Amino acid sequence: MKAYAFGVDVGGTTVKMGLFEADGTLLDKWEIPTRTEHNGEAILPDIANAIRETLTAKNIPAQAVAGIGIGVPGPVDADFTVHKCINLGWGVFNLKEKMNQLLPEIPNVAAGNDANVATLGELWQGGGKGHNSTVMFTLGTGVGGGVVIDNQIVAGAFGGAGEVGHMTVNTQESVPCACGKYGCLEQYASANGIVRMAKVMLDQCQTPSKLRDMERFTSKDICDLAREGEEMALEIMDRFGEYLGRALSFVSCTVDPDIFIIGGGMSRAGTILIDAISKYYRKYAFHVSTGTPFALASLGNDAGIYGCAKMILV
Amino acid sequence: MKAYAFGVDVGGTTVKMGLFEADGTLLDKWEIPTRTEHNGEAILPDIANAIRETLTAKNIPAQAVAGIGIGVPGPVDADFTVHKCINLGWGVFNLKEKMNQLLPEIPNVAAGNDANVATLGELWQGGGKGHNSTVMFTLGTGVGGGVVIDNQIVAGAFGGAGEVGHMTVNTQESVPCACGKYGCLEQYASANGIVRMAKVMLDQCQTPSKLRDMERFTSKDICDLAREGEEMALEIMDRFGEYLGRALSFVSCTVDPDIFIIGGGMSRAGTILIDAISKYYRKYAFHVSTGTPFALASLGNDAGIYGCAKMILV
Repeated sequence: MKAYAFGVDVGGTTVKMGLFEADGTLLDKWEIPTRTEHNGEAILPDIANAIRETLTAKNIPAQAVAGIGIGVPGPVDADFTVHKCINLGWGVFNLKEKMNQLLPEIPNVAAGNDANVATLGELWQGGGKGHNSTVMFTLGTGVGGGVVIDNQIVAGAFGGAGEVGHMTVNTQESVPCACGKYGCLEQYASANGIVRMAKVMLDQCQTPSKLRDMERFTSKDICDLAREGEEMALEIMDRFGEYLGRALSFVSCTVDPDIFIIGGGMSRAGTILIDAISKYYRKYAFHVSTGTPFALASLGNDAGIYGCAKMILV
Repeated sequence: MKAYAFGVDVGGTTVKMGLFEADGTLLDKWEIPTRTEHNGEAILPDIANAIRETLTAKNIPAQAVAGIGIGVPGPVDADFTVHKCINLGWGVFNLKEKMNQLLPEIPNVAAGNDANVATLGELWQGGGKGHNSTVMFTLGTGVGGGVVIDNQIVAGAFGGAGEVGHMTVNTQESVPCACGKYGCLEQYASANGIVRMAKVMLDQCQTPSKLRDMERFTSKDICDLAREGEEMALEIMDRFGEYLGRALSFVSCTVDPDIFIIGGGMSRAGTILIDAISKYYRKYAFHVSTGTPFALASLGNDAGIYGCAKMILV
């Protein structure tokens, strides 16, 4: 087996890059700016140059590199064709072919959607280490996710696998989600969603809460107050847990993963979050799956480069 | 490639058996009784004998057989260990090892859960032919299902994959499902479930309906009246479609299959059923997946033997 692999996670402002050993050890990581001007035409040449410079600096021959895994913020086909990464200015082209032209000395290139590769990274070396299949829920500005079964990313026929944030968990919602539908999980379980939901709940009751005294409050404020035992904050966390736990039970009834991983900025709340979710997951899951374990994501912003490398180091 | 494969679908009263050519042609099929007495100890020897007799009668050498795929009514591990098939009287044992003892001349044996292999069969030669991934919803006495991604059965960590009938689609339900939870899809979308739901709806309104004149009515009566345009029957079908379409949208947000297959006794209602489901599926699905096609299962009771053979003819 070749000794090294590169993991390259292309974001809208920076490209995160990592050099890995075959056993998953991250030897070095760094970032380069994402130059999105001129339809992002410089992005892949910049990546190729950065890889060549690294090989030279570390005196690693290209023949010792198993390949390059690349994560992109948009849908990717099984043959590594990317489809309109809006944040990068990219249209439709085959990413592997392009990289092979730029860097023929490392022919093995794989590509995947960023949410999916982050899930693969967390399963390989993060919160899900030691397991073979997972569904990750990423609770950030929105709610994203990824599905990995038997260590293979499930991308879906239309790139919609892992879009767990858009499960309709409330058919009575009158405010639209950013996607245009009504009552998506993301409207209650993202960092923005829980704040919006909290405001609605505060308007509909008289329960005292320190949140009422804050001009603006965040998801962290809600989690902190819940941890202190404030009744209103606990009620908000409970409703958040109901929506999320129910969504997780739908996932179990479909693919029944080994483990759930909870990631994204909100996951920093830790135990209080897992407790709220698992209470309702155990209520709604089919009996064989009520014991599915939960883990917090542990690789942070490095999950992507880990997953990219894992696409190569199968 | 070897020329033949056996598909063996073990049910509680009969074992369905099929002899297939490698291209999926079903050459012959037959049934033998399932002898469940003495903890079902005769079932596998009976299958081995039936296979030997068939080879002799058709003058096929064992060396020409690629293998035997076996579907069982219970959970099956990745190493083909079966776990308590209650209907067969079986405990826990490795099915491949047992068959290898009984029929060493055909060493390649695979096993799967019956609902999963039926899904694989429908994807291979039935309603999903030409596609690579599907989720099947089987609307029978209960609601079962199966998940196949990239032509591989997804069994789940705890055997819970494809248990789509136990998604909680109504959090307000006061009557328990057979599984002990409340508001499972099966309580509304199975042949029994739609009748139960119809009775509740009839009790709660004054809308005239021929169903009110029947001492007992079935899911077929509801579908027939809906096809005739009866308002009340259409309302029942609409609510049935809402529950089922919403459940399908959860599946899409998880694995985003190429195609949905609707099977089971209720699927004989055909277009009116698909119309009711797809109306709500398109409403609730994430935008990239709203176009997922629907197909009716087409292999009937043979789906299992097809899927069993396909486990061998990968």
